[in-house]
Amino acid sequence: MKKTDKSKMRRPKAETPVGFQDYFHDYLAQRKSMMNTIAEVFQRYGFDCLETSAIENLDALGKFLPDLDRPNDGVFAWKDDDKWLSLRYDLTAPLARVVAQYRQSLPTPYRRYAMGPVWRNEKPGPGRFRQFYQCDADTVGSNSVGADAEMIVLVADILGSLGLENTDYRIKINNRKVLDGVLEVAGVIDESGLASHTDIRGMTFRAIDKYDRLGLQGVRNLLGKGREDTSGDFTRGAELTPQQIDLIVSFLTMKQSNSQKIIDELRQLVGSTDIGSEGVFELYQIMDLVANNPNLRNRIEIDTSVVRGLDYYTGPVIEVELTFEITDKKGRVRQFGSVAGGGRYDGLIKRFTGQVIPSTGISIGIDRLMSALAAKKQNSPSPNSIGPILVTVMDPHRLADYFNIANSLRQVGFRSEVFLGTTRNIGKQLKYADARNCPLAIIQGEDEKTRGVIQLKDLHKGTEISKTATLEEWRLRDWQAEINEHDLVTTLRTKYPSLIYS
Amino acid sequence: MKKTDKSKMRRPKAETPVGFQDYFHDYLAQRKSMMNTIAEVFQRYGFDCLETSAIENLDALGKFLPDLDRPNDGVFAWKDDDKWLSLRYDLTAPLARVVAQYRQSLPTPYRRYAMGPVWRNEKPGPGRFRQFYQCDADTVGSNSVGADAEMIVLVADILGSLGLENTDYRIKINNRKVLDGVLEVAGVIDESGLASHTDIRGMTFRAIDKYDRLGLQGVRNLLGKGREDTSGDFTRGAELTPQQIDLIVSFLTMKQSNSQKIIDELRQLVGSTDIGSEGVFELYQIMDLVANNPNLRNRIEIDTSVVRGLDYYTGPVIEVELTFEITDKKGRVRQFGSVAGGGRYDGLIKRFTGQVIPSTGISIGIDRLMSALAAKKQNSPSPNSIGPILVTVMDPHRLADYFNIANSLRQVGFRSEVFLGTTRNIGKQLKYADARNCPLAIIQGEDEKTRGVIQLKDLHKGTEISKTATLEEWRLRDWQAEINEHDLVTTLRTKYPSLIYS
Repeated sequence: MKKTDKSKMRRPKAETPVGFQDYFHDYLAQRKSMMNTIAEVFQRYGFDCLETSAIENLDALGKFLPDLDRPNDGVFAWKDDDKWLSLRYDLTAPLARVVAQYRQSLPTPYRRYAMGPVWRNEKPGPGRFRQFYQCDADTVGSNSVGADAEMIVLVADILGSLGLENTDYRIKINNRKVLDGVLEVAGVIDESGLASHTDIRGMTFRAIDKYDRLGLQGVRNLLGKGREDTSGDFTRGAELTPQQIDLIVSFLTMKQSNSQKIIDELRQLVGSTDIGSEGVFELYQIMDLVANNPNLRNRIEIDTSVVRGLDYYTGPVIEVELTFEITDKKGRVRQFGSVAGGGRYDGLIKRFTGQVIPSTGISIGIDRLMSALAAKKQNSPSPNSIGPILVTVMDPHRLADYFNIANSLRQVGFRSEVFLGTTRNIGKQLKYADARNCPLAIIQGEDEKTRGVIQLKDLHKGTEISKTATLEEWRLRDWQAEINEHDLVTTLRTKYPSLIYS
Repeated sequence: MKKTDKSKMRRPKAETPVGFQDYFHDYLAQRKSMMNTIAEVFQRYGFDCLETSAIENLDALGKFLPDLDRPNDGVFAWKDDDKWLSLRYDLTAPLARVVAQYRQSLPTPYRRYAMGPVWRNEKPGPGRFRQFYQCDADTVGSNSVGADAEMIVLVADILGSLGLENTDYRIKINNRKVLDGVLEVAGVIDESGLASHTDIRGMTFRAIDKYDRLGLQGVRNLLGKGREDTSGDFTRGAELTPQQIDLIVSFLTMKQSNSQKIIDELRQLVGSTDIGSEGVFELYQIMDLVANNPNLRNRIEIDTSVVRGLDYYTGPVIEVELTFEITDKKGRVRQFGSVAGGGRYDGLIKRFTGQVIPSTGISIGIDRLMSALAAKKQNSPSPNSIGPILVTVMDPHRLADYFNIANSLRQVGFRSEVFLGTTRNIGKQLKYADARNCPLAIIQGEDEKTRGVIQLKDLHKGTEISKTATLEEWRLRDWQAEINEHDLVTTLRTKYPSLIYS
């Protein structure tokens, strides 16, 4: 680095990159508690933890994101020597790589959970985040619909453990095989699953997936000639015939209060195809398996509009929606929408090994769930939002003494720190204590030291702190106590046991 | 994705990218426990948590890594639309960005800790990892040497909390200002700190930093004409004169058992320079502040060869070394070396704001510390390494019943799962239980169901599991019990309370 050049350079701007976030103490304390709860449920269901590196070889990760208009199809990727590396865009693709790589030593089925950030190369824009946390559980190597049903029970159990009522959410299931049956009946794909042109199946799924956001006409356009959005960008359509579009739309908008009725209707619609029948039977089995679970009563429904955005699903798909409304920062009431989803992906590991390893999983979006819970239980106090006991510095030459005081408090489990800013003004030091939400301040000036005492101030009891008060003025407040310096630890343990951290 | 093209493509190789690692359950359980312990100590000292996104704007991150021969100076970076993005290479540079960005709302001093992965674009090679975990604590906005001394006390407290004896480590301190004094005396830089040519100061620091690895002659070459490594790669030297090199080397190799003696000697060497005197006085103050801490007695020493690799340090620097030897996989005895380090960096935030914000911090390398602790306390059992109670599947049509059994166990805190693999063979199911280290298996076939009982097998008590046994054979084993199905939960709670997870 050239010193001379550096001074000429313009200063870099201090800003979070567009689409990314910084997280501070209280948020992180709550997220940690939430992730611990989820991890405990995962473990109780028998899943083991796995963490892969954030970076994968691009070819191992595959391209399953629907964001085809972004560089590298929505993935952050770069060239490293002669290979392309990329950041993982979910936790499932790396799992497939791990299973293929370690299959000799992993148990079958391999049941793992994973938690961590994933990255998407989304178009930057307000509220569209390019890094977010996921918590996933997957069962790899099981073709039992029991494994799919378990994901539903599991996610309901997690939401319950996090404090949601079962009226707060709805679990919607569908099956890609039923969709394939519909496409076969419509003549979009043939019996072997092959489409008349290359990506028509994927385009159809992605069109259906946008039903919530674009409405019926938007989906019709995407299935037909294409669609122009408000910004004038044009998305190519699947070019299906009006009859094909009608059939798909009639399937998509199928609504029945009763899942037995919808199963009957689906059987009629796709019963002539093998793949469709199989899909309907699986839906029936899953509904049957979860029927007796009290957490799920009236919480689970078949919804034919659920397809899930990712390309790799092959069977049952699940989507979990929160049902309560929240008021956003601008005062608008809105639905929370999806906080978790998943499904069966039997072909993902085959990419590596050539061998089908049937797999199914669920993925929970932590950031969205955090916002939802925050909206639900407003302002529940977090134990971590209380600051440390502040040992003020009256005499800079006695720093070692102040450190000893803080250490003696830490040893019995209090959070404590010595004030390390530049000011010697007690008012400014207590202003810092205020900013940190410190419960107590400890003051020992020359006079107190001579008399072997300590001034203890209960800041949470005190009225608003005057920023310019002198030491003398502070001494006159009634929410402070003078105690013998040797009694400090004992006094605090007795009077403030709730501040003991561990 | 084109179906037809895809089948023609060669299969991707399932491999962890070079220089990266996958972590499995037991390792992760231990790491989590370690990181929780460290976080608790950080919090006890009054630090608050911060998490920045993994990705930063490249210009905000700056280039402070010494790995000048790698693309982007050792950082993973790529172009995103019209801007360069990069993965953070440490937790300090993002902290500087956050402080500059949020300085109006953060308390002063701002005391934060951060934990997470960082990425280095190192030359791939065995044992050189390109992603690793760091745990950092920093005090931003304090010019007190107390803040530097606190980092030393803090790191000793952390190592103690993790179960290390204070004879297991050594904390070495030095001061970049003393080094600047030496360079000024040697005539390498002038009074204003400017060097005769642009990067000579950085090159000198980096040369000294390699003392441990390259030995004295290696450092001499790097200070002089340059050095050729075993692979034939040539590193340009700082081109100092033999007299300058001699002075630096005499400083570098200064060894004294007694820190007062070394302080006296340093004062003599650099006392004629302002910067050097200041550095020596700071060393004296730090030694004085930690002198009474019982954890640190005989654990801290001044070591003039410590400079720390990163370019941004400006004052006291700290390095923490483990002193015990370990035997590596190839049977070689080796020293563990550095597990933590840090120091003062007064200029890092100035890059953004133009204003000096004095700061100091410590960074702990989690991966290395994990290996060290594993070597220290061999095979201590982790509570997470015990698998779930396995509910075997005798009759696929009764999956819902088996799920109910597993759920009833989970509800009282047992880890439990239903076997979801394809086999109905009891021997194979128990082989899976073995691979998962399951403590118990539950069996309920048709006969048991009719009689309303359950077979309970204690797998940890059992002898080696015969892989091909029939159900009848298993029934004859004496380490199994037949119990009434309604008594299952009560029986397990009474007989196996230690398996209750939470």
